[in-house]
Amino acid sequence: MGDSLDQIRAKKPLIHHITNYVTVNDCANMTLAVGASPVMADDIDEVREMVAFAGALVLNIGTLNARTLASMLAAGQTAKKRGIPVVFDPVGAGATQLRLTAAKQIIDCVRPTVIRGNLSEIKILAGLAAEIKGVDSVADETDSLAVAQKMANALDCVVAITGREDVVVQNERICRIQNGHARLAQVTGTGCMATSLIGSFCAAADDPFCAAVAGITVMGLAGEIAVASLREGEGIGTFRMRLFDAVEAMTPEIIRKKGKIIYETEEY
Amino acid sequence: MGDSLDQIRAKKPLIHHITNYVTVNDCANMTLAVGASPVMADDIDEVREMVAFAGALVLNIGTLNARTLASMLAAGQTAKKRGIPVVFDPVGAGATQLRLTAAKQIIDCVRPTVIRGNLSEIKILAGLAAEIKGVDSVADETDSLAVAQKMANALDCVVAITGREDVVVQNERICRIQNGHARLAQVTGTGCMATSLIGSFCAAADDPFCAAVAGITVMGLAGEIAVASLREGEGIGTFRMRLFDAVEAMTPEIIRKKGKIIYETEEY
Amino acid sequence: MGDSLDQIRAKKPLIHHITNYVTVNDCANMTLAVGASPVMADDIDEVREMVAFAGALVLNIGTLNARTLASMLAAGQTAKKRGIPVVFDPVGAGATQLRLTAAKQIIDCVRPTVIRGNLSEIKILAGLAAEIKGVDSVADETDSLAVAQKMANALDCVVAITGREDVVVQNERICRIQNGHARLAQVTGTGCMATSLIGSFCAAADDPFCAAVAGITVMGLAGEIAVASLREGEGIGTFRMRLFDAVEAMTPEIIRKKGKIIYETEEY
Repeated sequence: MGDSLDQIRAKKPLIHHITNYVTVNDCANMTLAVGASPVMADDIDEVREMVAFAGALVLNIGTLNARTLASMLAAGQTAKKRGIPVVFDPVGAGATQLRLTAAKQIIDCVRPTVIRGNLSEIKILAGLAAEIKGVDSVADETDSLAVAQKMANALDCVVAITGREDVVVQNERICRIQNGHARLAQVTGTGCMATSLIGSFCAAADDPFCAAVAGITVMGLAGEIAVASLREGEGIGTFRMRLFDAVEAMTPEIIRKKGKIIYETEEY
Repeated sequence: MGDSLDQIRAKKPLIHHITNYVTVNDCANMTLAVGASPVMADDIDEVREMVAFAGALVLNIGTLNARTLASMLAAGQTAKKRGIPVVFDPVGAGATQLRLTAAKQIIDCVRPTVIRGNLSEIKILAGLAAEIKGVDSVADETDSLAVAQKMANALDCVVAITGREDVVVQNERICRIQNGHARLAQVTGTGCMATSLIGSFCAAADDPFCAAVAGITVMGLAGEIAVASLREGEGIGTFRMRLFDAVEAMTPEIIRKKGKIIYETEEY
Repeated sequence: MGDSLDQIRAKKPLIHHITNYVTVNDCANMTLAVGASPVMADDIDEVREMVAFAGALVLNIGTLNARTLASMLAAGQTAKKRGIPVVFDPVGAGATQLRLTAAKQIIDCVRPTVIRGNLSEIKILAGLAAEIKGVDSVADETDSLAVAQKMANALDCVVAITGREDVVVQNERICRIQNGHARLAQVTGTGCMATSLIGSFCAAADDPFCAAVAGITVMGLAGEIAVASLREGEGIGTFRMRLFDAVEAMTPEIIRKKGKIIYETEEY
């Protein structure tokens, strides 16, 4: 997995984002911090052309509207036709009918390579009963793995559910990641940033399952490192800034030594 | 007032924002820093549904357009019908005819619970002569109280005018707040963030007058604490980051000890 | 050039931006850090009125769409009619046909006072063959000066190309700036921020060539100062924050002592 980090830095792949205006700057800077090159473009008249140059496409419905949904569908379909991986973040799916419908439409029309969400989002998309509070999960995490497996099997894609423990599933492959820190939930956009990292790893490696594991692990480790760096009087604002320092300073060695990655299936 | 801070942290109310794309990330992170849960959604097809789950709605016209104005009106009316407090920030009202008309329309159709602006904005909305420079006030602050009273009485709502000294008015109630620091005007969005804090307090407490006083006091104190933390060579960028640290670290004790809150009427 | 920095701080000119939603917050805070006053407004029904109060207009096509393009054209034409300088940042021009067409339309209809871009963007706009990677230049910088001259002569405006070495050209005037640091390319929006600084200097000084030199020099020096401030364990997140500290702390003395500004023509 460290290899793919080196590959991002060697290739500097272009990561095309169609994302929300709340966390877009953080997604761009996180993409740069890991070593890739972000581009944000959402007009229907340019997204097909832009995505053709990209190593991966990130779709995020955090501040969805009719105009950007059409662009997401167009870019997503072009990407899939060209073999470019698409990472989808169904922010707040289920919080409103609009988000649920849009998320389902993106899933049906684009067939994303990786879907990353919180448990509430993924449960609702999988047709299971769940509550959601705005864009935050309020679901009990004991069934994360079963939910991810149901969704991954139904859609034949990689499904990643982030929470206290993260799970990544593809076909028979299962991985649990136990990195991270509760502070990550106190900063807006850490989920979106994890999705951008997954997109960056997808563009550098051929295996989207490993890319999802890598992106989530790097975000979790960055959270741990940023928390450990806090001194007396420093809090959430400083923590947020240090996340970028930590991702920039991430190395294969840190991932190998500190990553709490548990493969429940034998990785080959 | 410290009680309501504890209540925000206990309840973590959802604060639905329809706001500008300049400071939206700061508003989200400030809402999280104080202990509430932000959600940003502005599509007309989802705002009524989203706001129904919210503890408060924040409307901010900083980068207004026809699409988002319609969403603000729809969300605002739904909120009021359901008894959800609406906090309105008329950014730049009077700088252009569009903003003035839109602000008046929001006030007429939504009847916000709290209106927070700078003196130029509130004067112009109150029908008084005033100049404004972009989104910054250039009005002489000696008549802040009279302006706030005129507006609060006309609209039967809470009016908060922030400036060197802040005033909050509702019916016969008057409060002056003397916290804050000139540096707050050197960072974009500190007014917007104060409005988000007011929204968070509105969702946790039943008294919007107290909520406005609390939100403004917390922002002012955060400014003082952030300035006091600056070391040699640190300036506006560091100050901005520390605002979030300071709001996260805010306690009822700090408010009680350092808050310069002057009630001109007896508070019961 | 130090004079014009003092003049920004004395006049606090209003800088109207119609810009992208990725880096808009940074542009606003950078404008404040240098001492000017940012306002962001992009609705077609208010931009003509807003720009009339501005000291300069900044147009940036980083996240272009049909709605904002129309607003840029309207604001730009109003500005030029009123003698207000217009600074244009053709972000990603050439990456897609939409951006190229839009950039050309802005140039033709508005006749910007200053155009600042990277070498790929300017080459493509000058009708020369060039590749671009998203919004990043991949062109060989040896011909920066010739490209800037071609463009400046064709359009009778100031052209600034930023890269490892920056060049600014107007008619016979040529300036090379050798400040800056590679880290500036690791943070999103440092180009956009440089454009905002140029806008701020344009509003305070009568000479847009000098304004472009000043804005670019201040950004480059800020990069150097921010890098020099980094301690063990600090990286890109901290660097980004310190850019704002450094611009706020910029003085005519720092520019005079540390600026590596080489005029290839005699400045009068």
